[in-house]
Amino acid sequence: MLHIRGGDVVTAERTMRADVLCGDDGRILQVGADLETPVGFDVVDAGGLLVMPGGIDPHTHMEMPFMGTTATDDFFTGTAAGLAGGTTSIIDFVIPGRGRGLLDSWKEWREKAAKAASDYGFHVAITEWNDQVHRDMGTLVEECGVNSFKHFMAYKNALMVEDDTLLRSMKRASELGAICTVHAENGDAVAYLQQYLLAQGRTGPEAHPVSRPPEVEGEAARRAITLAGLLGAPVYIVHVSTEQAAKAIADARMRGQEVYGEVLPQHLVFDESVYETSDWLKAARYVMSPPFRPRHHQSSLWGGLMSGQLHTTATDHCCFCAGQKEAGRHDFTRIPNGTPGIEDRMSVLWHYGVKKGRLSPEKFVALTSTNTARIFNLYPQKGAIAPGADADIVLWDPDAERTISAATHHQNVDYNIFEGMTLTGLAQTTISHGKIVWQDGDLRAVKGAGRYLSRSALKRTPRKPL
Amino acid sequence: MLHIRGGDVVTAERTMRADVLCGDDGRILQVGADLETPVGFDVVDAGGLLVMPGGIDPHTHMEMPFMGTTATDDFFTGTAAGLAGGTTSIIDFVIPGRGRGLLDSWKEWREKAAKAASDYGFHVAITEWNDQVHRDMGTLVEECGVNSFKHFMAYKNALMVEDDTLLRSMKRASELGAICTVHAENGDAVAYLQQYLLAQGRTGPEAHPVSRPPEVEGEAARRAITLAGLLGAPVYIVHVSTEQAAKAIADARMRGQEVYGEVLPQHLVFDESVYETSDWLKAARYVMSPPFRPRHHQSSLWGGLMSGQLHTTATDHCCFCAGQKEAGRHDFTRIPNGTPGIEDRMSVLWHYGVKKGRLSPEKFVALTSTNTARIFNLYPQKGAIAPGADADIVLWDPDAERTISAATHHQNVDYNIFEGMTLTGLAQTTISHGKIVWQDGDLRAVKGAGRYLSRSALKRTPRKPL
Amino acid sequence: MLHIRGGDVVTAERTMRADVLCGDDGRILQVGADLETPVGFDVVDAGGLLVMPGGIDPHTHMEMPFMGTTATDDFFTGTAAGLAGGTTSIIDFVIPGRGRGLLDSWKEWREKAAKAASDYGFHVAITEWNDQVHRDMGTLVEECGVNSFKHFMAYKNALMVEDDTLLRSMKRASELGAICTVHAENGDAVAYLQQYLLAQGRTGPEAHPVSRPPEVEGEAARRAITLAGLLGAPVYIVHVSTEQAAKAIADARMRGQEVYGEVLPQHLVFDESVYETSDWLKAARYVMSPPFRPRHHQSSLWGGLMSGQLHTTATDHCCFCAGQKEAGRHDFTRIPNGTPGIEDRMSVLWHYGVKKGRLSPEKFVALTSTNTARIFNLYPQKGAIAPGADADIVLWDPDAERTISAATHHQNVDYNIFEGMTLTGLAQTTISHGKIVWQDGDLRAVKGAGRYLSRSALKRTPRKPL
Amino acid sequence: MLHIRGGDVVTAERTMRADVLCGDDGRILQVGADLETPVGFDVVDAGGLLVMPGGIDPHTHMEMPFMGTTATDDFFTGTAAGLAGGTTSIIDFVIPGRGRGLLDSWKEWREKAAKAASDYGFHVAITEWNDQVHRDMGTLVEECGVNSFKHFMAYKNALMVEDDTLLRSMKRASELGAICTVHAENGDAVAYLQQYLLAQGRTGPEAHPVSRPPEVEGEAARRAITLAGLLGAPVYIVHVSTEQAAKAIADARMRGQEVYGEVLPQHLVFDESVYETSDWLKAARYVMSPPFRPRHHQSSLWGGLMSGQLHTTATDHCCFCAGQKEAGRHDFTRIPNGTPGIEDRMSVLWHYGVKKGRLSPEKFVALTSTNTARIFNLYPQKGAIAPGADADIVLWDPDAERTISAATHHQNVDYNIFEGMTLTGLAQTTISHGKIVWQDGDLRAVKGAGRYLSRSALKRTPRKPL
Ligand SMILES: [Zn+2]
Ligand SMILES: [Zn+2]
Ligand SMILES: [Zn+2]
Ligand SMILES: [Zn+2]
Ligand SMILES: [Zn+2]
Ligand SMILES: [Zn+2]
Ligand SMILES: [Zn+2]
Ligand SMILES: [Zn+2]
Repeated sequence: MLHIRGGDVVTAERTMRADVLCGDDGRILQVGADLETPVGFDVVDAGGLLVMPGGIDPHTHMEMPFMGTTATDDFFTGTAAGLAGGTTSIIDFVIPGRGRGLLDSWKEWREKAAKAASDYGFHVAITEWNDQVHRDMGTLVEECGVNSFKHFMAYKNALMVEDDTLLRSMKRASELGAICTVHAENGDAVAYLQQYLLAQGRTGPEAHPVSRPPEVEGEAARRAITLAGLLGAPVYIVHVSTEQAAKAIADARMRGQEVYGEVLPQHLVFDESVYETSDWLKAARYVMSPPFRPRHHQSSLWGGLMSGQLHTTATDHCCFCAGQKEAGRHDFTRIPNGTPGIEDRMSVLWHYGVKKGRLSPEKFVALTSTNTARIFNLYPQKGAIAPGADADIVLWDPDAERTISAATHHQNVDYNIFEGMTLTGLAQTTISHGKIVWQDGDLRAVKGAGRYLSRSALKRTPRKPL
Repeated sequence: MLHIRGGDVVTAERTMRADVLCGDDGRILQVGADLETPVGFDVVDAGGLLVMPGGIDPHTHMEMPFMGTTATDDFFTGTAAGLAGGTTSIIDFVIPGRGRGLLDSWKEWREKAAKAASDYGFHVAITEWNDQVHRDMGTLVEECGVNSFKHFMAYKNALMVEDDTLLRSMKRASELGAICTVHAENGDAVAYLQQYLLAQGRTGPEAHPVSRPPEVEGEAARRAITLAGLLGAPVYIVHVSTEQAAKAIADARMRGQEVYGEVLPQHLVFDESVYETSDWLKAARYVMSPPFRPRHHQSSLWGGLMSGQLHTTATDHCCFCAGQKEAGRHDFTRIPNGTPGIEDRMSVLWHYGVKKGRLSPEKFVALTSTNTARIFNLYPQKGAIAPGADADIVLWDPDAERTISAATHHQNVDYNIFEGMTLTGLAQTTISHGKIVWQDGDLRAVKGAGRYLSRSALKRTPRKPL
Repeated sequence: MLHIRGGDVVTAERTMRADVLCGDDGRILQVGADLETPVGFDVVDAGGLLVMPGGIDPHTHMEMPFMGTTATDDFFTGTAAGLAGGTTSIIDFVIPGRGRGLLDSWKEWREKAAKAASDYGFHVAITEWNDQVHRDMGTLVEECGVNSFKHFMAYKNALMVEDDTLLRSMKRASELGAICTVHAENGDAVAYLQQYLLAQGRTGPEAHPVSRPPEVEGEAARRAITLAGLLGAPVYIVHVSTEQAAKAIADARMRGQEVYGEVLPQHLVFDESVYETSDWLKAARYVMSPPFRPRHHQSSLWGGLMSGQLHTTATDHCCFCAGQKEAGRHDFTRIPNGTPGIEDRMSVLWHYGVKKGRLSPEKFVALTSTNTARIFNLYPQKGAIAPGADADIVLWDPDAERTISAATHHQNVDYNIFEGMTLTGLAQTTISHGKIVWQDGDLRAVKGAGRYLSRSALKRTPRKPL
Repeated sequence: MLHIRGGDVVTAERTMRADVLCGDDGRILQVGADLETPVGFDVVDAGGLLVMPGGIDPHTHMEMPFMGTTATDDFFTGTAAGLAGGTTSIIDFVIPGRGRGLLDSWKEWREKAAKAASDYGFHVAITEWNDQVHRDMGTLVEECGVNSFKHFMAYKNALMVEDDTLLRSMKRASELGAICTVHAENGDAVAYLQQYLLAQGRTGPEAHPVSRPPEVEGEAARRAITLAGLLGAPVYIVHVSTEQAAKAIADARMRGQEVYGEVLPQHLVFDESVYETSDWLKAARYVMSPPFRPRHHQSSLWGGLMSGQLHTTATDHCCFCAGQKEAGRHDFTRIPNGTPGIEDRMSVLWHYGVKKGRLSPEKFVALTSTNTARIFNLYPQKGAIAPGADADIVLWDPDAERTISAATHHQNVDYNIFEGMTLTGLAQTTISHGKIVWQDGDLRAVKGAGRYLSRSALKRTPRKPL
């Protein structure tokens, strides 16, 4: 039981000087100015710190089997690294293998995740359509605490779905009170361009962004949004990285559609120049999809976040070490796609967002936690500093500096894409369910301490195209 | 002292079953589930009702001298009518007469408003530029509780300002922590078209919308936003009525600019057909600026409100009776511009917004109260249901119906533009500073009970064009 | 041999008083003011008439087998009707049946078309992809006079192609100096909506437009353009009927892409209200794809034609009589899609375009003839009034009126969608290959007089996305 | 009398191998393949050359008094330099001095221009509004051969006009069959920013672009277009240099408005980096308005030219030598605005347009000559290679290279902004009124040989907003 004393509580709505009491049920007991320390409570001095809801990362891939290998951060190491960065919840993805049912896959992922150090939930990927899928979606929403599904418009011949499946899944999800999320890239175009580039002998990682140009994302995002609009269904576009996709989202929202967009800090700070190096491994480490873009796209991402047309920040955390990346040494299409980031998301956003004058601290909380909690129906259990909410709290030092390095990070991967960046703003203390799990560089993550986030269906304001 | 019991508290963030205690200082004492009734507190039964922050109307013109006459609702009758509709605060406008200083005018308006039944604040209009204006803006912000200024881009040879004045005022306001608001219509174009139409013998009210077409608003809005963008200054566009202006705002926000837009319920429900009548007076009563538009513009206004690119609802409440409207019987340019609305704003927005499935109750609170409080730095004194906030509360009956009529309304004007509309959703009880001022049709407004809203400067996140 | 005397020659570039001599090889011999009549030439008095290039209709379906029946206008009756309306050339479509090769199909269509009364060429539809298709495209361009291919993004499980096929065909065509044309509607969405509507018992023709909403066209157009843009390939969108598709084209052109758009006069003058009738047959007769739209879309089509962002006018002429339409009496998806129009295209465009002040006569020529000739590489053989050009000429009476009726038209179909319209502007005389084939209501069409238009590859200015 | 033999005649419509005969009246006598050389005609060998209409530069300022000095190229030297570059006509500007009437000023300019070596016409600037201006506009159109007027939205307290004047002038011009042209920059904003920058001690030429950012042009262009749209009047935007202005034009055209846009080659090839030099004079030489822009704006200019939404190329040729530029050594607002360019316009456009694959040769002719002739009603006297047209012809060597230098140019100014550029494509021979005035580097310009271009009113297709 903790008495967080003397800090400035920052929520998505406001900042105020207040103390916070965390009860023995792992929830917040009271929020108020100058509270007395009840008996049995330990005092945490939050003087000079911001007391914010713990971060939620709605897009991670812990120990995911992908492209013939498995992501190295497992649910324990990955969530532990998250705690070190102020992130106290994740929503990961259940990706059913070929021929595996949705429910079996969900159970499998539940088992893998049992070792998590922070709370976790799952989006479940829909990769084909049939009556069983239709039924299982119902079971997942009604009995398994899943209220979001994932769809890949890329990765042809693997995870990609046709528009028909997208329509049926969106319709079904919408009726169930769930939301569809979409990886938006035109898979046919990507496959065509990959083949074309390889045929031209362009096998290196610098061909990766050429095979997935911005238009390919913009097209798919606009298509997914159009399909959702036909059905009056909500849709959430993951890892928006381009002006085109951001604009597609903003346009649809101005027509009254319920569309959300997610941004990765990577895309906010890196551009396509990361691939312009003769160091193969260095470039390969930045191979993720969507790739890094010409710099001007960043303006649209920031503009979307600032204006409220883009809503969440995530990492698409997916770790592959040098040996794994090597699989694509002679063929960029075989480089496992993915970059790490869960530990650094909040610092990067604070530094480039708040410190650089683009975001207020309240907006920072909205973008790292509250908006995600709302969209995926975790609010106010998560994303809030209020009585009854889970005591997942980060004490943020807005002025402290740190230099990012794989040498010191807690992620189970042999590089850090932010290597060498000196950032202002860090998680001084992280509290999960009322317990201190990170303080002043001391990580006290507990294997299996995380709980499954059962997310119920959300009755949404029905949106019809105007 | 009141114990509001058994209702659903709705804020901009969430809805929860909770009781509210209003203390003897007119503030909210406690919010929580199933509270005990303290000694000396009267119980108000809120069963089946929504307990929401009282409405704030950021755009009214009580007893304004305009076009040779004076608006008939004074600060008492107008604010009393507001209370009957659930609105517990207004922000009115100080309009300095020719040659009158800003400070003198502000004092004059303070005196007129002393009789108000609800709380009130002022935007101060800047209608010319000189060193005295520059100094007075400082005094108003630093000593008089004014943090917003108004500018007319129309009303040539009267209130209209040139771009140069707009630039200087925006710069000054921005430095002071104030925000500029803008009536956006191209005054040169309006004056030209008026003269042109009159010369053609088109003297009736049906010429009014022709003299101020949508493009004229869109142009001015875009211009004001461009000028603000050059300075990195925030700007607030009043009474957005067109697709063009809504789009100008949304576009700028996507570039990272801090721009806000205000919508009037009138524009959400009426279109240009109101002028197509042979009943001169009927048409004249709808003469306001900007005028009612072709119907498709309403989609953009709703889309803006739904997406968060338009932010507040107001009324531009400005009452002129039949005898006053008659001044323009033979010349539409002499019809006093203005329509009433303060009493019905919230019902109209609930009915067409929430009831019709466009807005959630939380969004309704944001659009009628909280967003305005935030933008004009009244939050969380206003716009919140939380300990310490002013006990300005409306108990909203979401299902009750009423038919609007001048015969029964409390506004001091001889017509109601919503006459005959049957709306679902009304203020069952209104509480101002912890006192019931309206209940079940019984208006207990007290002359002079309203307090001046001193609004301090707002340190904003500095926005630079990206 | 004709001497067309005393008319105003109108081309896409200019209007001038000039005579035209048509030689005995069916070509124009000379154009000039006040020419002498050479020996053996018949004088045609063109006083008060406009002497314009004969119309070219780039989108017809004569005797097409479709949806279990065959279009009733064959190559003779259809082209003859065209001559009566001033159209002297068509480009029809070779639609390979399942399992039929491209070359065989092309030959089959050549045979069917041998009876044509006017000149004709073919676009060849690509409905699948394999090596044979790749080879046949080369043969068609290099040996068969085909420089354009057609792709259906709709008609799922029938003609529809995936994005992959579109990409491969565009790439191949672009290398060959040919252009791809696209029917842009999202076939998955259409099939889904059809099935959904039928399941709801909505079986009538009024459900047809609901199954193919504007967004479905806009999405597909934007997708096709994006794919073409990736390849730097030109693309031509047939029957643009929506604001969304028009905007997609205009946006791409402003990025430097080579994109063309075709408009049907039907879409310029009819809106969705044609389906709002209890007369089943009347509504069924308007069933074509894309369907008729909400009225405001027409502004975008006119704007596109006026600004030069849309380029050609066509008819999608495809005739089905009452008995044929009856096939869908109980299921709107079985109504043969198609409307007639070849005879009236030019009059409708003159009346609503030139007469109503939207288009100049020169622009009319560009939109009915010259632009099509340029895009499909028939210029200046067609689309020009100049020495050496084919003497395909229409003497246009700009002021004559006629009322359209199936009772008097020459199309082999039992209705006319323009029935009852009184239009100003008509073909007073039509000349094909130097011979009068229509004059003052006297149709002298000759079976088999038409010639095959062999269109060679076009070396285009290479366009790369900027 | 000339027989231009063996070249490829290129017009805006087509390219064909043809000879051209120029008669003794300075007009084209005949165009045709393999003509015989008539008696008395000199043969000009055009083998390997393109025979194109002479260029028209619609925006020059010869010997203009401006900012306290006078542009150094006078009507003789300037037009002579034009001939050396293939430009055979200019349209210059009559700029009435304060208190000078329009007619007097026009006469004054006629006198100055009498020494011109090529043909010339005038736009007349409207800098104020009164009844005399209204009358004089009529006289100029009806009696003086002026069919275009110029308006400055910038240069506050000098040439700038208010919106009211713009409206009245557009209305008047439109009624007269004339067109208004507009220098689009928000003059209030420019003046404000200039003053602000100077007050901050930013006095160097690098502050010049900061004082006139892209938004300032975009705003003004959109405003001018909106005003024209209200009146249904055509409008022509000079020197479009930004994405914003190009988009404003394209948007309006898609609404059916008649709007034209002009581009300077300078803006196509230079960006704002020209001001980033410590060499004051070098930077000062690039000081013109609108200034050079961030590079991405060039894409919009090219896209506009390629898509047909921008129409002409001009130079804004306005020469100030080092001594003159020095006037602003300590105050960038006093640097005479202007850059030379008439001699190099066509080569720059050929090299970066045709050679780089953006434009076809036909489009090149349209953009350098024909479109201008059409818009300003000089076609087909100018802009055409056809019997009866003026024999103003350039024989273009598409493959010849030359390196631009002030050391070798013919402009009367001590620098060339294109200094050092090696361009492909040049005027091998220039013919004015049937006489060779430039051949293989030999300039035979004749003082006073130019004729006044009397341009009559143009009956336009009436455009109403759709
Ligand atoms: Zn992904
Ligand atoms: Zn992912
Ligand atoms: Zn106003
Ligand atoms: Zn007002
Ligand atoms: Zn079609
Ligand atoms: Zn068709
Ligand atoms: Zn200028
Ligand atoms: Zn100029």
